[in-house]
Amino acid sequence: MKIQKYKKNEAFSYVLGAALVIDALDNSNIIEIYIHPNTKESDSINKIIEYAKDNGINIINSDKPFNILTKKQNCFVIAKIQKEKKVLDDKNHVVLVNPSDFGNLGTIVRTSLGFGINNIAIIRDAVDVYDPKCIRASMGAFFKVNIEYFDSIEDYLKRFKNRAFYSFMLDAQTKLQTVENSVDKYSLIFGNEAHGLDDKYKRFTTPIIIPQTSDVDSFNLPISVGIALYHFTKKDFE
Amino acid sequence: MKIQKYKKNEAFSYVLGAALVIDALDNSNIIEIYIHPNTKESDSINKIIEYAKDNGINIINSDKPFNILTKKQNCFVIAKIQKEKKVLDDKNHVVLVNPSDFGNLGTIVRTSLGFGINNIAIIRDAVDVYDPKCIRASMGAFFKVNIEYFDSIEDYLKRFKNRAFYSFMLDAQTKLQTVENSVDKYSLIFGNEAHGLDDKYKRFTTPIIIPQTSDVDSFNLPISVGIALYHFTKKDFE
Repeated sequence: MKIQKYKKNEAFSYVLGAALVIDALDNSNIIEIYIHPNTKESDSINKIIEYAKDNGINIINSDKPFNILTKKQNCFVIAKIQKEKKVLDDKNHVVLVNPSDFGNLGTIVRTSLGFGINNIAIIRDAVDVYDPKCIRASMGAFFKVNIEYFDSIEDYLKRFKNRAFYSFMLDAQTKLQTVENSVDKYSLIFGNEAHGLDDKYKRFTTPIIIPQTSDVDSFNLPISVGIALYHFTKKDFE
Repeated sequence: MKIQKYKKNEAFSYVLGAALVIDALDNSNIIEIYIHPNTKESDSINKIIEYAKDNGINIINSDKPFNILTKKQNCFVIAKIQKEKKVLDDKNHVVLVNPSDFGNLGTIVRTSLGFGINNIAIIRDAVDVYDPKCIRASMGAFFKVNIEYFDSIEDYLKRFKNRAFYSFMLDAQTKLQTVENSVDKYSLIFGNEAHGLDDKYKRFTTPIIIPQTSDVDSFNLPISVGIALYHFTKKDFE
């Protein structure tokens, strides 16, 4: 057993905690599972052990991986998983340009899944969605969403054409509540937490603003994504 | 100079970082200001020093407060502020029942201010909004919002009566997008991150659900608050 801290360029990542590992069982490619010697028996642990046996996954009883991989006192199970290259399908998308915060990205993954948007495009440079912190922040939603990285927005646009593009910008004229999307498919595009989107996005999108008072600079990124998704998907929930 | 870590039962708190201290200048009662000896001259620092001189606020040049109060490498200014008892006015309110996360509370304060809701009621037990982590998460919005604690929802209801009460619950029948508030003033009530609101809230509120797929348990609390505020305030931004 050789345990090393998570690294972006390795082919594997780690899923920390029993609840998340259970979400991972049927939805990811598990290499091995670590169980802490101090673990108490529970339904969750039994379920994980049984699944491992049924699927020929090695279980290692040791505190060593926990010392290296997590500082949380209440984490007793870790799954080592194979990274997979996921590919977007041609439905509605959330597009994140240069997202820089693990927690924000995880929250956005969870929120998108909650609104039925299962495809997230990420334009580099960007935070690594396979980082254990990001997987954790998604609270399991990570395993059910297609997340694909693109080197540039141009690369993304080469693959996805016949759809409406909406960008969220603070200097836009069109208020979100007035937007009625009538096109079959759409992409909702959001900029980096600190810098937003640059003006070139105005050339191929409908820029939208979520109206706000001047008392704050802007809403934080997951809040903006959540509000936009609420508006665009509410007719799907009628 | 006696510096001690922030404590909930003390009469003062700390504001960490130049940008936040600037927000605090005209909007809080500053006791003294600490400046790190390694600070480089900047417009922000000059503004803070000038304000301190004009208002007779003591400035202390020392790295000691920074060693005790913050682990961030990039924090060079700290303001020690007097806690103030704020009182809600009788406009629209956000009501948070037992919020338990500093970051969430700070984000909600910022989001509320962004939507023009300047009154937040917090029902105990609850996280301390004067904790430096919470002030920081609000990104300065903390200084512009009335935040008042109540020992129970009954105490809150004694003071605030003639208004519409809406509660956000996962088993509600009324979908947010169908709600048209016609009452002059409203209170939007949200439960704890893990447990939500108990059934007694159904007796005096209109329970509302933000529709979602079954793929996630619920949206996180700041996302739910943001979406609710967007819906309820959008006519204010027409």
